[in-house]
Amino acid sequence: MSVLTKVVKLQREGKRVIRLDVGEPDFPPPAAVVEACHEALKGEKTHYTESRGIPELVEALRAYLKSKSHFDAKPEQLVVTVGGRFAVYAAIATAVKEGESAMIVEPAWPAYKEQIEFVGGKAISVQTSLEDGWGPSPEKIEERIRSNTKAIVLNYPSNPTGKIVKPSLFREILEVANEHNLTVISDEVYDSYSFAPCPSILEGGADSFILTSSFSKTWAMTGFRVGYAVCDRESAEKIVRLASLMYTSVPEFIQYGAIKALESEEEATRNREQMRERIAIAGRELDRIPGLEYYRPDGAMYVFPEAREESFDASTFAESLLNEDGVSVIPGAGFGRYPRCFRISLGSPKEVIVEGIRKIGEKIP
Amino acid sequence: MSVLTKVVKLQREGKRVIRLDVGEPDFPPPAAVVEACHEALKGEKTHYTESRGIPELVEALRAYLKSKSHFDAKPEQLVVTVGGRFAVYAAIATAVKEGESAMIVEPAWPAYKEQIEFVGGKAISVQTSLEDGWGPSPEKIEERIRSNTKAIVLNYPSNPTGKIVKPSLFREILEVANEHNLTVISDEVYDSYSFAPCPSILEGGADSFILTSSFSKTWAMTGFRVGYAVCDRESAEKIVRLASLMYTSVPEFIQYGAIKALESEEEATRNREQMRERIAIAGRELDRIPGLEYYRPDGAMYVFPEAREESFDASTFAESLLNEDGVSVIPGAGFGRYPRCFRISLGSPKEVIVEGIRKIGEKIP
Repeated sequence: MSVLTKVVKLQREGKRVIRLDVGEPDFPPPAAVVEACHEALKGEKTHYTESRGIPELVEALRAYLKSKSHFDAKPEQLVVTVGGRFAVYAAIATAVKEGESAMIVEPAWPAYKEQIEFVGGKAISVQTSLEDGWGPSPEKIEERIRSNTKAIVLNYPSNPTGKIVKPSLFREILEVANEHNLTVISDEVYDSYSFAPCPSILEGGADSFILTSSFSKTWAMTGFRVGYAVCDRESAEKIVRLASLMYTSVPEFIQYGAIKALESEEEATRNREQMRERIAIAGRELDRIPGLEYYRPDGAMYVFPEAREESFDASTFAESLLNEDGVSVIPGAGFGRYPRCFRISLGSPKEVIVEGIRKIGEKIP
Repeated sequence: MSVLTKVVKLQREGKRVIRLDVGEPDFPPPAAVVEACHEALKGEKTHYTESRGIPELVEALRAYLKSKSHFDAKPEQLVVTVGGRFAVYAAIATAVKEGESAMIVEPAWPAYKEQIEFVGGKAISVQTSLEDGWGPSPEKIEERIRSNTKAIVLNYPSNPTGKIVKPSLFREILEVANEHNLTVISDEVYDSYSFAPCPSILEGGADSFILTSSFSKTWAMTGFRVGYAVCDRESAEKIVRLASLMYTSVPEFIQYGAIKALESEEEATRNREQMRERIAIAGRELDRIPGLEYYRPDGAMYVFPEAREESFDASTFAESLLNEDGVSVIPGAGFGRYPRCFRISLGSPKEVIVEGIRKIGEKIP
């Protein structure tokens, strides 16, 4: 039984669970977004739309990217999708065909591997370690590239480690990718939770790229399911065709809400600052647990500690932590071969994070 | 350029288009649905949910199907999806693997063929004709089944013909399907617009089936993107995995709205009666055009007339009708090999339908 299934079961039984497993922030969405959705609903914006997204949202996204990243996209390079997850799936489906392969840097969000395998590709993983500060080695990446490798998925700030690679390392990786004609799929969904300079694929350096992102984290809109992709026109056209084939469009009134999100700078800043504070608090609590080592996150909304004890098994630990202490974390096996690690999400309020990590400390003295 | 692209272009240029092409009704969604979505939005129902759908919606859907079709589904047999389109895609992906084939009855909604081909299957089409009242022959279906044929897609009431097959013919088709171990994918998205007894796969008779449907037509909720599948537990599990892989869940607050839709009987009835009236009106207008023959729809929201003139080319006609007369229809080639047919949608108000068909009559005397 997965952690999530078990958690839901326990909660249905009325048990309290200290949730450090969820991959979403508990912040509310911007009031202006809720209001805009409601207005659009009342105004019967309840019809099919262009699969790429309504022109008003595409234009707002173009302007947003230009002001944020100085990237001057053409509307034909943008696609609004049902969540960042679909953007990643469509990016992978666009870049990788059956029998080809794509690289992922582990530990990694499990969807990358699942989606690569779903399109009939092989996921080649490059391992990183806490010892190396979760930084991938361009040499190791180059060594593992095969003749059928078509793409590499990057994700900075990283889920689950919180790592942001230095811009110079990012560029080195892009050079390797260019050398081998790989499409760089850069999942920048956590970019607004960055507390160190975070390189973006939109700054240039990749010959071929697909950026995937979402409204979920920046504006706490997970349950709206709106994401997007930025790429060359041809790839964008393929992503539009996938969206059209599978679901037609994002709900029309939600697209009107999404326009307002792009203007909600205040909420984005507030969410970022809250996450910064949570990372600091989690650090303070983890520092008191001698049995754990961890990399202090540069960004994102997770910490991925590793037990010093060589024989530690995070899967057994997570199960026992949930059953005996009512604290849910995701064992490292979910993100690659990391049996001594587990992921703590900072999506819950500070006091919940503190309570949860203290219970972890009681179990790992 | 597709009809839709051309229409959008003309409308952007400020030209008026009499839209008889759109596959969605212009009715408003139930007020209770809008209200429930808004309440849920305000109540921060803005998070990820179970990929199958929130338990409250799954339960409401179970009760709805039981009261409507006397089909007593287990919750494990139900999956809420982002629109009926995704339900159909997931049903096809579940029933048909690469190198296998599935049957479609033409004229048919183009998505069936596209989705079968997308999963690497081959679409085997069985032709029906206006002469035969668009009724498929079980013998012809049986003849065309191959050893690798795994499924047959049925769609009654039919898009584009409005045909509803007699329950006895439906049963005969199911018997052929059972004989050859085919999964019956029954797309019943137009079932609330039925003006003749409409057989449902839920009434029994198929050894293996996946019903797909949606909230889009019954409650005029196209732009909410909520659909569902009803099937055996194993297929449902596969569909849940696809949803989980591609988009996580339907937006949470929309799911609360969907619960209210299932209770909105009055609006469903009103929409049905309006569509019945539009079909009658379209019939009266078409009866005045000697150059056209048509089957008077038993259901759905379309008429699919055929020109008597042997050399008639509906694609050229549709283009000229749009450019010269500002009326948009979809040529028959979009639904199979029907060069003399075109689809008239009844999604627009009565007066628009009348105006559009009169303009067609001026062109086809």
